[in-house]
Amino acid sequence: MSAALLHRLKPAVSVASRVWSCKPPRIEPSSAAASVRLYSGLMEPRAPLFRQLFESESSTYTYLLADADSREAVLIDPVLETVDRDLQLINDLGLTLKVALNTHCHADHITGTGLLKKKVFGLKSAISKHSGAAADIQLSEGDRISFGKHCLTVRETPGHTDGCVTYVSEDEGMAFTGDALLIRGCGRTDFQQGSPHRLYESVHKKIFTLPGHCFIYPAHDYKGQTVSTVDEEKKFNPRLTKTLQEFVNIMNNLNLPKPKKIDISVPANLVCGLHDI
Amino acid sequence: MSAALLHRLKPAVSVASRVWSCKPPRIEPSSAAASVRLYSGLMEPRAPLFRQLFESESSTYTYLLADADSREAVLIDPVLETVDRDLQLINDLGLTLKVALNTHCHADHITGTGLLKKKVFGLKSAISKHSGAAADIQLSEGDRISFGKHCLTVRETPGHTDGCVTYVSEDEGMAFTGDALLIRGCGRTDFQQGSPHRLYESVHKKIFTLPGHCFIYPAHDYKGQTVSTVDEEKKFNPRLTKTLQEFVNIMNNLNLPKPKKIDISVPANLVCGLHDI
Repeated sequence: MSAALLHRLKPAVSVASRVWSCKPPRIEPSSAAASVRLYSGLMEPRAPLFRQLFESESSTYTYLLADADSREAVLIDPVLETVDRDLQLINDLGLTLKVALNTHCHADHITGTGLLKKKVFGLKSAISKHSGAAADIQLSEGDRISFGKHCLTVRETPGHTDGCVTYVSEDEGMAFTGDALLIRGCGRTDFQQGSPHRLYESVHKKIFTLPGHCFIYPAHDYKGQTVSTVDEEKKFNPRLTKTLQEFVNIMNNLNLPKPKKIDISVPANLVCGLHDI
Repeated sequence: MSAALLHRLKPAVSVASRVWSCKPPRIEPSSAAASVRLYSGLMEPRAPLFRQLFESESSTYTYLLADADSREAVLIDPVLETVDRDLQLINDLGLTLKVALNTHCHADHITGTGLLKKKVFGLKSAISKHSGAAADIQLSEGDRISFGKHCLTVRETPGHTDGCVTYVSEDEGMAFTGDALLIRGCGRTDFQQGSPHRLYESVHKKIFTLPGHCFIYPAHDYKGQTVSTVDEEKKFNPRLTKTLQEFVNIMNNLNLPKPKKIDISVPANLVCGLHDI
């Protein structure tokens, strides 16, 4: 891995020895034009290569981002069962996978990170330092993960778990929100250090403060939806448009069944998905 | 519906009374920059609003495209079971649905077109004139379907069925290929007028001649893949990179089971999905 992959905005001990900041964010486009940003037919030399991938059993989205010039890539929330598919795509596109990032310690599936590390020489794993999970890179608020000329910035968004983070692209045009914010929903808060108060604060302070046109790419969707925007969720999210107290009441009365795979997934994910492989 | 929604390049009888061409395609970006076009963080005032939606039972993708200014929208390959989800999104985004387009007469699911027409005043249905299916607009090669300042152009791509078409955006940056070309695959050719010879010719002459960076958005994916490009399929499609004779041999020996819903879906889709609703 390039030592430049991780760099911190604040002074801190880092596994990376070289600090190399990606370029500053662009000037924001006007909000009036925000809704047209969902597809660009124009060449966009500064945009990363991007692919959204889906694992149907756990309804998990995995995201591949890469720099088109250096071919350095990162993979967000890989799933054990789809590692071979993802590696085939990475190979087809001529990319070099540098970091497997997790938004949190998942309860519903085993991360593909450990298996990827076995298959990809030099691949580093990354997860929040608050997750309690083992990883090569323990992330904190403001950390940046670089791939070529691009980077993702870490925003800590606890509430679903203590170690949930949102990864934000350098232009604040894409936010990978994990289970903190789903499309018209959010992650549950009734296990794994869940706290509706913290989740509400995280979403409102760390995600809803992003530009309105910023795309929301969640870790899951159960209705075939692929993307939303900050503006949409601020208007239409049935939970997070409520007051804090209403939100807490909703979250404390969901009465959801225990996730089927939690007893397998969480122990495995605490060791980067390597458990029992 | 605006009379400007449909216009033809060649002289022909049209349900639309007014010919109104959308702006000419842009100059092609260089192929070297093609791979970076998968995500734009920049404002792109000419790009349509775009959403990809998924129906999990039949693994069908539905596509919503709209003009950000006029809010006119089209929906490609709606599915009966997800009509309410799609209408909710259209409503949330403040769009006016003008045309429900089908890439062909599907065998694996019932189109949502008929139900949408019942729920959306003035909505028009569209499908190839070679499909044998009823619709308000019978499409032919070169026809254009407009929504606001944008349009999709029809390319006839038979082979999976006689009435398969591919819808291409005005900048040739997106192609909605139906079952003609899937990601690393293609539609079967063993029912509904299927012909491997015709399919091979359609893909090579009508889709592989698009710019290499053009995104391929298929009607289905069964592996959680969401998008590909012309370049990728020309390099990596395991069937369509073969010679014609090899392709025909592959397609004639797939020995696939009969689609579960074909006896219900095809009769329903021949009447725009209104059968038995």
